[in-house]
Amino acid sequence: MTDEATAFVPGHVTGFFSAHPREDPARAGSRGAGVALSHGVRVTVRRADDGERGDEPETTLNGESVAMPPVDGVRERLGVPDAAVDAETPLPLGSGFGVSGAMALGTAYAANAVFGRRLSENGLVTAAHCAEVEAGTGLGDVVGQARGGLPIRLEPGAPGYGAMDGVPARPRVEYVTFGEVSTEEVLSGDTTALTRAGERALADLRERPTPDRLVALSRRFAREAELTTDRVESVVADVRAAGGDAAMAMLGDTAFAFGTALSDAGYDPAVCEAHPAGSGLVSE
Amino acid sequence: MTDEATAFVPGHVTGFFSAHPREDPARAGSRGAGVALSHGVRVTVRRADDGERGDEPETTLNGESVAMPPVDGVRERLGVPDAAVDAETPLPLGSGFGVSGAMALGTAYAANAVFGRRLSENGLVTAAHCAEVEAGTGLGDVVGQARGGLPIRLEPGAPGYGAMDGVPARPRVEYVTFGEVSTEEVLSGDTTALTRAGERALADLRERPTPDRLVALSRRFAREAELTTDRVESVVADVRAAGGDAAMAMLGDTAFAFGTALSDAGYDPAVCEAHPAGSGLVSE
Repeated sequence: MTDEATAFVPGHVTGFFSAHPREDPARAGSRGAGVALSHGVRVTVRRADDGERGDEPETTLNGESVAMPPVDGVRERLGVPDAAVDAETPLPLGSGFGVSGAMALGTAYAANAVFGRRLSENGLVTAAHCAEVEAGTGLGDVVGQARGGLPIRLEPGAPGYGAMDGVPARPRVEYVTFGEVSTEEVLSGDTTALTRAGERALADLRERPTPDRLVALSRRFAREAELTTDRVESVVADVRAAGGDAAMAMLGDTAFAFGTALSDAGYDPAVCEAHPAGSGLVSE
Repeated sequence: MTDEATAFVPGHVTGFFSAHPREDPARAGSRGAGVALSHGVRVTVRRADDGERGDEPETTLNGESVAMPPVDGVRERLGVPDAAVDAETPLPLGSGFGVSGAMALGTAYAANAVFGRRLSENGLVTAAHCAEVEAGTGLGDVVGQARGGLPIRLEPGAPGYGAMDGVPARPRVEYVTFGEVSTEEVLSGDTTALTRAGERALADLRERPTPDRLVALSRRFAREAELTTDRVESVVADVRAAGGDAAMAMLGDTAFAFGTALSDAGYDPAVCEAHPAGSGLVSE
């Protein structure tokens, strides 16, 4: 046990997915594929002082107090009501980077260390995945963030139920973001067409698991699922006119690409790498 | 496709294990736990020139030509007879660091890139795991090396059959090594007592998955399985007298510990970290 611990969790962009809701949150999730990013979230957990404790424990994101139900869910599952959670990230919230999943998973790792909870990594991932599913803020980010690389979700759910694979590459990643798309709204609507398109993209990626194919299938998925925003549509058209390829982050008004595809099309993107490792403690 | 590609695979020390031989090498393997090391193996694959091709493709380790059946097995499974394999590592061969497994897995990653084989990461891990099992040189290093961190093998076998977990910590690692112990000899003998001790250690680690517990259970396992060498026995006694703990690498005449336990006991160990990521390409 320790007074304070910090975990790093990579951001995660989903390129395509199918939704698989289930009564049991550990069995619920998504199939699909995406990219774990070297841009991520640092989550520090400490014991709240007596004076700080109100009805709700404190959660901050980049210094601002935020309501973050997946973090509250992790506190409850780990039995750590006094965990004060401070998160720092360069990634925008609600724009398809898995910030809520990262905060949940980072809280699980760091709170496990501070409060001596003795969970294994699978236990921590399960707690964060279930809290994210129950909050309705995501279905597949947490398991992707736990794995790192270019994660493929073969079967939905937390460790023990889900199954993961990966595209064997660690490309440079570029992205531009214009704002939010409501994950809750899409996931709570009719997901039949989306799921059919997502299943087809997954089968095609498994035939040929390369980064180029991941982007091309993600672009096709967003069009088939009718999720592409006007601004992302316009970026993708520019990138393709310049000889490259780009796709939309699920779910945000965000375009992503590998290599220099966005730069080559004249954009000034944020640049990072596919994160090779999954999540973990950085200090305790 | 590319002319040459390089992969990095972490070393892997097993602390305790149970052996689970099966007819199908993808289902064979071990349960147990260990440490993926930041000290590892860089494996470069290139197309052999016409002039180089003999009956056997070339494999080198630190510049010396070596016979490495698990690498030959990967060449066969990937259908890349012309893959020349050059490996570099600071780790000694045959001393419990998973060098043969690392060479197999690194060959799979790099050859997949050079020869455009289009396997997923699970496919690459499966090829290397099966080649290692068939060569009789290891049962669990490859899946541990693919995962990184402090891997726990919950169920034996390649992805799709096996199941992994991890201890949520990334400690500093110290080790001293005195030479070889034959993995083939131990694995081909009666493994009943060993497997009983390994299963018990696994159950106890799952109760409390911490680095300290991993070392203590590994120490107990080596004693119960009657595998502790005289030199490792003496190192462990010194470390415990100094207030620390250490255990033996399975299978090598090697002692390992976390933090500064070996230094504190007056040894001059090699020092590295638990490797946070699994294996992957570093250049192509």
